[in-house]
Amino acid sequence: MSCVFCAIVAGEAPAIRIHEDDDQLAILDIRPFTRGHTLVIPKIHTVDLTDTPARTLAGMAALGQRIAKAARLSGLHADGNNIAINDGKAAFQTVFHIHLHVVPRRDGDKLSFAKGVLMRRDPDREETGRLLREALAKVDTAEKD
Amino acid sequence: MSCVFCAIVAGEAPAIRIHEDDDQLAILDIRPFTRGHTLVIPKIHTVDLTDTPARTLAGMAALGQRIAKAARLSGLHADGNNIAINDGKAAFQTVFHIHLHVVPRRDGDKLSFAKGVLMRRDPDREETGRLLREALAKVDTAEKD
Repeated sequence: MSCVFCAIVAGEAPAIRIHEDDDQLAILDIRPFTRGHTLVIPKIHTVDLTDTPARTLAGMAALGQRIAKAARLSGLHADGNNIAINDGKAAFQTVFHIHLHVVPRRDGDKLSFAKGVLMRRDPDREETGRLLREALAKVDTAEKD
Repeated sequence: MSCVFCAIVAGEAPAIRIHEDDDQLAILDIRPFTRGHTLVIPKIHTVDLTDTPARTLAGMAALGQRIAKAARLSGLHADGNNIAINDGKAAFQTVFHIHLHVVPRRDGDKLSFAKGVLMRRDPDREETGRLLREALAKVDTAEKD
């Protein structure tokens, strides 16, 4: 399979999953800018904003918001998040299956974020995934109340 | 009025408008990272992803996508776009009324984007606004067909 995200969706490539439903998947970025850097990936392959249905994008935004809230609530103690879609190679898109980045941020991390391109590894990916899944369950429970 | 985006929504502060409907406004950023850098702003004041309704966010994403498509079609000749929401001060949010950035990108502009913080001015904002509005009308017409 030539698309790595399609391979992950199909269960043929490994990933640390934060969330999965019928339409989309959220996984940890293997080269995180910060701890908890998550990618929201629609299961159906499209490339970028030119061919992705608006309804799919709305689902990505909704899940991205839930993960952003979860990052703040979680043991990662995020104070905020950068949400981003890189639409096209000119915009630094590297995997040509559309995805939305959620990059948890903490007060005062500006310098390490600027250095992020060099520092992109997480010392404990499994624990990061567990902390985000746990907080996401809390966000979802709160929204059902 | 203490919120500059609420003042723009109310027509009490100037802005170059790309789009306006009942729920949201799209304007040129006064300190653009690239030519055509646009902000999508919901009319009802909320701060960040913690207090913005999911429905509002879906509307922002949909309009952001239309503007991203318009930037590619437009006389700005974008090859892609960075879409971003800075959720919280820790994530570089500077105006505390939620907004979505659409930053049109062109192949090979990486260096000027990296220098963007220093170079943030557009030599012809009015023309940039005109080009984006014209292309947005084309996107909207195409989607109605």
